[in-house]
Amino acid sequence: MGYTKFQYGTLQSFCHKVFETFGFSSCESRIITDVLLLSDLYGIESHGIQRMVRYHMGIKKGLIDVKAEPEVVFETPVSAVIDGHDGMGQVIGHRAMKIAIEKAGQTGVGIVTVRNSNHYGIAGYYAKMACDEGLIGFSCTNSEAIMVPTFGRLAMLGSNPIACSMPAEPYPFFFDASTTVVTRGKLEIYNKLEKPLPEGWALDKDGHSSTDAADILKNIVHKNGGGIMPLGGNSEISGSHKGYGFGMICEVFSSILSLGMTSNYTMQDSKGGICHGFAAINPSVFGSAESIKRHLSNYLQELRESPKAEEKQRIYTHGEKEIEALEDRMRNGIPVNENTMLELLDLCEYLNMDFSAYFGDYRPQKGTIMFENNY
Amino acid sequence: MGYTKFQYGTLQSFCHKVFETFGFSSCESRIITDVLLLSDLYGIESHGIQRMVRYHMGIKKGLIDVKAEPEVVFETPVSAVIDGHDGMGQVIGHRAMKIAIEKAGQTGVGIVTVRNSNHYGIAGYYAKMACDEGLIGFSCTNSEAIMVPTFGRLAMLGSNPIACSMPAEPYPFFFDASTTVVTRGKLEIYNKLEKPLPEGWALDKDGHSSTDAADILKNIVHKNGGGIMPLGGNSEISGSHKGYGFGMICEVFSSILSLGMTSNYTMQDSKGGICHGFAAINPSVFGSAESIKRHLSNYLQELRESPKAEEKQRIYTHGEKEIEALEDRMRNGIPVNENTMLELLDLCEYLNMDFSAYFGDYRPQKGTIMFENNY
Repeated sequence: MGYTKFQYGTLQSFCHKVFETFGFSSCESRIITDVLLLSDLYGIESHGIQRMVRYHMGIKKGLIDVKAEPEVVFETPVSAVIDGHDGMGQVIGHRAMKIAIEKAGQTGVGIVTVRNSNHYGIAGYYAKMACDEGLIGFSCTNSEAIMVPTFGRLAMLGSNPIACSMPAEPYPFFFDASTTVVTRGKLEIYNKLEKPLPEGWALDKDGHSSTDAADILKNIVHKNGGGIMPLGGNSEISGSHKGYGFGMICEVFSSILSLGMTSNYTMQDSKGGICHGFAAINPSVFGSAESIKRHLSNYLQELRESPKAEEKQRIYTHGEKEIEALEDRMRNGIPVNENTMLELLDLCEYLNMDFSAYFGDYRPQKGTIMFENNY
Repeated sequence: MGYTKFQYGTLQSFCHKVFETFGFSSCESRIITDVLLLSDLYGIESHGIQRMVRYHMGIKKGLIDVKAEPEVVFETPVSAVIDGHDGMGQVIGHRAMKIAIEKAGQTGVGIVTVRNSNHYGIAGYYAKMACDEGLIGFSCTNSEAIMVPTFGRLAMLGSNPIACSMPAEPYPFFFDASTTVVTRGKLEIYNKLEKPLPEGWALDKDGHSSTDAADILKNIVHKNGGGIMPLGGNSEISGSHKGYGFGMICEVFSSILSLGMTSNYTMQDSKGGICHGFAAINPSVFGSAESIKRHLSNYLQELRESPKAEEKQRIYTHGEKEIEALEDRMRNGIPVNENTMLELLDLCEYLNMDFSAYFGDYRPQKGTIMFENNY
């Protein structure tokens, strides 16, 4: 059981066709494909093409409305609120960040908050959209409840990632992290490997630290209690209240300002209800964008060149690993898990698409699922 | 050796007089006093009146220029850059947040970044200023280098706190946290108690995890290497790269956008060079400020009422502990450490002020310093 590498272009044509067949426009299909495959290119397999099955199920179950049009329901020169009307998260997210970027072009700052959306892929994609235009980009999203607040035993916040990207040379600052210590996908991997979890990741249904991945995942699914700890663990000594606080800031810019659903209400009764937040800031409202970019680039270089801990070869700045993964995958192909390929085969049958038109003679064999999950 | 409680009014009159005697105007002295004493009222002793000696030394050594006037060097309707000209951090910070608030009143958003300042007290004070005006407030500051980046062994970032406050009932959301796992003050306490540090806090000069507070503090002072870990520790398993990333976001809004000194250059050669960032956002640019406030208040209440972990009585929302400390201290007085009082006695001699005019017959005795330090 393993991985097979496919060229970017192959996966791109395939994804595009799948989403068109689901009923999305060509332009929408391009956006969704772009978000998913950037994740695979960046080495974040969890949020890439392996999520196709999740979107497939979301559309089938009616959580995702293919025909929904995101609607701007409130607007000022620096802000907007969008009702996603249960559409596809990537389409809504892309539209929202476009508006934030336009506003940043006019006033210097654009902040857009979104309610009634669905999972939108990696938060970093939208931060990168702003960065590609020379701006500082932010994006965050809530999700189904998975983070247990400090001293609690029920998940009340999502994994609540916050992403930030900013132009620099030789590559941008690109930070994208859940405010939980890890994400559910990591628990799933340990469960499949039948390995105990590291201490400080998860809580059982009574709110005690636990290393039993199978038990925790079962309790999460059945909403018995328990979940994942905030960044900083479950004790104030290790800074649990800080991760919980950054998770709250994510909730403010997604569900609170949009008057949408907080994480503890999302993904229930055939309703996603996911909320996002986006911001774009033009560095030139603080002076020369070129000088600011150079100042950041110098600092990032100093960080990379600063003395390493013994036995460590390298200090990374945020975004370096992603850039290196992208270069490798554009050259050598994107590794896709055999189980994911089986799901894509199923999808072709469901949509009456010709699998071999994209993947030739390749036929996946059933095996253990071994996906990575970044948040 | 212990603590003596003094009424808020007593400490307020004393502090005000001290700063006037140093040469600050009455208005400036009021601001500095207000920042310091809010910290004591909130139970954050480290950043309160016990820091008087630090400001005293800063002024004596020429790091802090009492006569400096903060200057707006760049401005747009949504932003400003301030050169603090080495003035007192609190005076500069207050001015900067006032400008951010004014801009938020006019355009909906104000972002102000500051270079060439000095330590400004608790970041939360400035976030609270915006919140008191019905706005969402943010503040962050860099500091002398104390955070070692993931896989490094030399401190390259500051403790880099990020504060956020937002109106809610019955009390606001108020989050103020360093992006290091703890602050230097915590190491100093363990050192004084001769206790080993908890695992996951600090690094020795070679970049290995260490519990030897005395050795770590010595290395920090002599810049031999080592320091404090980011929130999330020193391993990617526990999320080290996330704390390091949030520390970078703080650096972006303080030193990078202001073209000021990054933390690795501050506090050298009689120059503070500390940089801050401030933002104020008017919630009414997203709809009804009242509805948004109610939505946040409801969510905070749900968090407080959600099931507790076994053996835990309470889930806190951010700002609750501070509000309770404030109510207690306004009623029962502010506890001040005897060593701090000794420093204030010295200060009176230096400034030719009458200690007994404020503290009557009370005379402090020398003992072990036991201060708390929140970041």
